[in-house]
Amino acid sequence: MTVNTPAVRGPAPPPGITPRERLLQAAVEAFAEKGFTATTTRDIANRAGMSPAAVYVHHDTKESLLFTVSVEGHQAALAVIRTAAALPSAAQGPAPLPGEGDHVARLRQMVREFSTWHAVNSRVGRIVQYEFDALTPDHRAEIADYRRQIERVMRDVLSVGIADGAFDVADVPGTARAILSLSIDLVRWFSPRGSTSADDIAQLHAELAVRMTTPR
Amino acid sequence: MTVNTPAVRGPAPPPGITPRERLLQAAVEAFAEKGFTATTTRDIANRAGMSPAAVYVHHDTKESLLFTVSVEGHQAALAVIRTAAALPSAAQGPAPLPGEGDHVARLRQMVREFSTWHAVNSRVGRIVQYEFDALTPDHRAEIADYRRQIERVMRDVLSVGIADGAFDVADVPGTARAILSLSIDLVRWFSPRGSTSADDIAQLHAELAVRMTTPR
Repeated sequence: MTVNTPAVRGPAPPPGITPRERLLQAAVEAFAEKGFTATTTRDIANRAGMSPAAVYVHHDTKESLLFTVSVEGHQAALAVIRTAAALPSAAQGPAPLPGEGDHVARLRQMVREFSTWHAVNSRVGRIVQYEFDALTPDHRAEIADYRRQIERVMRDVLSVGIADGAFDVADVPGTARAILSLSIDLVRWFSPRGSTSADDIAQLHAELAVRMTTPR
Repeated sequence: MTVNTPAVRGPAPPPGITPRERLLQAAVEAFAEKGFTATTTRDIANRAGMSPAAVYVHHDTKESLLFTVSVEGHQAALAVIRTAAALPSAAQGPAPLPGEGDHVARLRQMVREFSTWHAVNSRVGRIVQYEFDALTPDHRAEIADYRRQIERVMRDVLSVGIADGAFDVADVPGTARAILSLSIDLVRWFSPRGSTSADDIAQLHAELAVRMTTPR
C-alpha cells in the first residue's frame, strides 16, 4: 500500500498519533457502529478521549468529520490507482515497459491494488458510500469529483491500450466503471474474517479485468 | 420484468393498491429521503395517508417495515435471476437449448435481467444495502440467506457450463460474485436521469460476463 493514513487504514490506533488523527479514527468507529445519524459529537469525543469542546477546535459539525473521512478515503483510493497506473509492475521498477505487455501489466496492477485497498479499508468504504447523502450538496460535489478522477485514470489506461492494440473495448466509460465496480463492491461483502483473502480476491479481479478488455 | 411488486418497482403509486402496499411504498420513500434512523413511524404514516395506529396493524416496528422491504427486494431479485437461468432466451421460449450456446445465452440473459432489475430498482437497492446493519440479527441472517441463494444460482450455471466446456473458470465462487457485483454496484451510481440507459448497461454487463467466463 502506498498511502497510509491512520484514520483510513488500521483497526488499532498506533501510539503517538495526532489529536486530529485520533478524532478521525473515533469518527470512523462511531459511524461504523451506530451510523452517521445516530452518532453524536459527544460519542466521537468520548471515543477519542477528548472533550466535545476540543472536537469543535477541529470540526465545527459532525458532517465536517464525515466529509474529512470521505475526502481522505477518496484521496487514498485515487493515489493507489494513480500510482499503480504509473508503474506497470512494482517488481519491474519505475521505467515504463515497451509493447503490449505494458498495458496488460498496468491494468492488472491497477485492479489488484484498487481491490486490495477496498478490502483492507472496507469499513471506511462502507461509511463513505452509505452515508454519502448525509454530506452537504457542496461536499457531495467534491466527492463526486474524486470519483470522476478515479474513473478517468481507468478510462485513460484503457484508451491508450486500445490505440496500441492491447485492448479491445467498445464502450470505454462503461467498461472502466464495470472494472472499478468489482473492487468497490468489496466494501459491501468483504470481511477480513471471511474464508477468502484480500490478496486472492485482488488477484482474481485483476485476471477478470484482463479478460474483459483483451482481444478474443 | 417477471416480478412486479409495487413497493419495489414504480415511482408513482398506482390507483387501488392495498394499504399494505401503500405503507411499503411510503416506507421506501421515507427511508430513501431521510435514512432509516431519522425516519419515524409517524413520517411513514403521514406519507401513506394513514394514522400511526393503522401502521401498527401491519408492522409493530419501523425495523419490521425495513425488513419487509428487504425481503421483497431480495425475493424479486432472486426470482429475476432464477427465471432468467431457466430460460436461456425469452425469444426462444421455455424449452432448454442444446449445445454450448445454451450456457452462454443463459448467462447473458441472467446478467442482463439482474442488471436491469438493479437499475430499475436502484432506490430500493440502496436502502436494502445501506441500512442492512439496522436489521435485527435474525433478520440479517434471513437476508444473508437470500444473498447466498442468488450466488448459488450463478455458481450452478457456471459449474454446469464448465462441465460442458462452455466456460473456463478456475474460481467459481469468486467469479460468480464478481459477475453479480457488476449488477449490484449499479444501485450506488445508476440514475434514471443519467446519460446511459439501463438497457445499454445491462447489455454491456452481459457481454463482460461472457468475456469473464468463456475460453480464450
